[in-house]
Amino acid sequence: MSNAVLEIGKKAAAAKSSIANAGSAEKDRALRLIAEALIRDTDKILAANEKDVNAAKENGMSSALIDRLSLTKDRIKAIADAVLEIISLPDPVGRVVSGSTRPNGIRITKVSVPLGVIAVIYEARPNVTADAAALCLKSGNAVILRGGKEAFNSNMEIVNSMRSALSQTSISPDCVQFIEDTSRESATALMRLNGYVDVLIPRGGSGLIKSVIENSTVPVIETGTGNCHVYVDKSADIDMATGIVFNAKTSRPSVCNAAEKLLIHKDIAQTALPKICEKLKEKNVEIRADESALKLIPDAKPATDEDWDTEYLDYIIAVKAVNDIDEAIKHINTHGTKHSEAIVTESFAAAEKFCAEVDAAAVYVNASTRFTDGGEFGFGAEIGISTQKLHARGPVGLPELTSYKYVVRGEGQIR
Amino acid sequence: MSNAVLEIGKKAAAAKSSIANAGSAEKDRALRLIAEALIRDTDKILAANEKDVNAAKENGMSSALIDRLSLTKDRIKAIADAVLEIISLPDPVGRVVSGSTRPNGIRITKVSVPLGVIAVIYEARPNVTADAAALCLKSGNAVILRGGKEAFNSNMEIVNSMRSALSQTSISPDCVQFIEDTSRESATALMRLNGYVDVLIPRGGSGLIKSVIENSTVPVIETGTGNCHVYVDKSADIDMATGIVFNAKTSRPSVCNAAEKLLIHKDIAQTALPKICEKLKEKNVEIRADESALKLIPDAKPATDEDWDTEYLDYIIAVKAVNDIDEAIKHINTHGTKHSEAIVTESFAAAEKFCAEVDAAAVYVNASTRFTDGGEFGFGAEIGISTQKLHARGPVGLPELTSYKYVVRGEGQIR
Repeated sequence: MSNAVLEIGKKAAAAKSSIANAGSAEKDRALRLIAEALIRDTDKILAANEKDVNAAKENGMSSALIDRLSLTKDRIKAIADAVLEIISLPDPVGRVVSGSTRPNGIRITKVSVPLGVIAVIYEARPNVTADAAALCLKSGNAVILRGGKEAFNSNMEIVNSMRSALSQTSISPDCVQFIEDTSRESATALMRLNGYVDVLIPRGGSGLIKSVIENSTVPVIETGTGNCHVYVDKSADIDMATGIVFNAKTSRPSVCNAAEKLLIHKDIAQTALPKICEKLKEKNVEIRADESALKLIPDAKPATDEDWDTEYLDYIIAVKAVNDIDEAIKHINTHGTKHSEAIVTESFAAAEKFCAEVDAAAVYVNASTRFTDGGEFGFGAEIGISTQKLHARGPVGLPELTSYKYVVRGEGQIR
Repeated sequence: MSNAVLEIGKKAAAAKSSIANAGSAEKDRALRLIAEALIRDTDKILAANEKDVNAAKENGMSSALIDRLSLTKDRIKAIADAVLEIISLPDPVGRVVSGSTRPNGIRITKVSVPLGVIAVIYEARPNVTADAAALCLKSGNAVILRGGKEAFNSNMEIVNSMRSALSQTSISPDCVQFIEDTSRESATALMRLNGYVDVLIPRGGSGLIKSVIENSTVPVIETGTGNCHVYVDKSADIDMATGIVFNAKTSRPSVCNAAEKLLIHKDIAQTALPKICEKLKEKNVEIRADESALKLIPDAKPATDEDWDTEYLDYIIAVKAVNDIDEAIKHINTHGTKHSEAIVTESFAAAEKFCAEVDAAAVYVNASTRFTDGGEFGFGAEIGISTQKLHARGPVGLPELTSYKYVVRGEGQIR
């Protein structure tokens, strides 16, 4: 166990009551001060970011990744605005969820409370540093941030800015902890900080998620990987199917709610597939098809077994013709990542069957998988999309960053 | 990875849709048939139990543990009755939790769904076999049972009985799986059955819980250990405090919601402690006291550092005098297991402070910790008491054995 990480865990645990017991007004004041500090410190953050970007360029990072890493004055303004937006969301702490008076007179109230200390392990985007911290603070939690080494200087400067803001409030600056060590060992140590960390949220690619699941003894909210399907049923409206597949695949291919696979009923494939593929060509989408679909799309590549389990996050889609809806559902439940799955159909029975039997955080009838998002669902900001079933499923917003306790009041009742 | 355990995981996963998609009526019919089968098979179960009890006696098991292991006709009747009681509880599956229509017209519904496959690892009590299976089935889940070797024959016969009942329904008997291998390896294999097992619930002592937390890559609902405190505030009604401490300690010392520690404000210790200890003597409770409390209880033993972290599950209590409520809260948050914690006080401010600042599943003002129980809370049967904050906290009843999914309906909406 890394001693530095243990010390950080202890500091966060010691500080957490200062945020857990802060009222909404004080938490919102802290968030406003954080947004102001980020703007005030823009030059410092940009200077730190320049170091990161230069190092990345020297290391031959791809231009797409460098773009994700790079900050500008406008981007820092956007980060500060995102913090301000969290202020306007309802405080998830202290809600009375339910309650009752029992026959013996004890009064039971179930009340939402912060989780305590949330650790977030993430990769190269520095905006996550402020986003994740702001969501944790609003929900009354201390946060331990462990970002990727590529964004180290940027993250550090953003954390300094946030901590300086907290020092002007009753909330301890130690409620925002930053792990400077970006080695694999520090991540592993964090995953085993039981007793200090209540929940660990990984934000990143499938390699990070897998490592966290395999190594974490701390409870985890698994997020992010999306091998999402659109199934075009035999009764589908072909124009609607074309629009949905095109949107789900191409509107933002790098995100987890983008479609990676098209399943199509064999009875409609002959008429629908050429239209859908023609549309996808507008964005130069590479099509990989199974044997039967390949006959209808002459310029497609043949798909391999591996394709069905791959999240491309790119302008690539694999297409499979299926004999019926049962085969589609079985394929999705076997190869999907339980994220977002869509059916396009005019059949009520098919729609209901798909919704009941597909095992995923979000199931769609006649709409794009791209809607799985805290903002689109009306929840406000999110810290990720959970693909597990325990605690939180789908967009993880402020309410999902809380637990609850039972408060029981009596006048001497015994059992 | 044990192949046998993997095969069991696959069978459960393949069968789970037959219970997930069964309606309430069919699930309730299955539970009724299970209760009837247990009564019908009483002689077989008793014969199997006799084997277990004889082996336990040969191995020198204590009489208390042999009593927990032993079945009688009446006890089997009680097990069947417990299954029947679960029928009367509301079906937790298919509840519409919330929903909205978004500005673009998509309709979002959040609906409760089964978790999928629940694995339960438990120790010597054969009644858990039927209890856990019935709760999992009612909540639409397949279950994998991994009981202790001491109850192997009894568990096996109860499982046979339950599976024969399921074979008369549309629900696959494979929804109840039993791991015959009672080695540590089979338990470890079960803890790593990601992709087949959705949630693992350990039911047993702190050694089992610890092993599961350290080894499981499957999401866990941690249950059971309770190092519970009663804090007697300076303003407490001494008679009430005496009654609550006596009840919390002695009404059933072997359970997790029993009190293990008494914290007492120094200003009331001199008058209250002799009365409380005199009452505890009625049940021959061994008292271990810190230095300052020891002066007031001449016949107590001195407590060691280790005492503050020990769950005795016996007629033993450790007593500590504290300077104020802050010291009491700090002690509880440091040494408690986040289960059930009580304050006895006449002060409104002290009560509110204790409820806000003590970090536990259940916090009590002027009532016994013994009420932390699904039945006492009005939830019906429970599968355990969760001491973690993710997903379920406190009594884990039927609603806590479900997850949810978002069902989104549209007419071609894209983003």
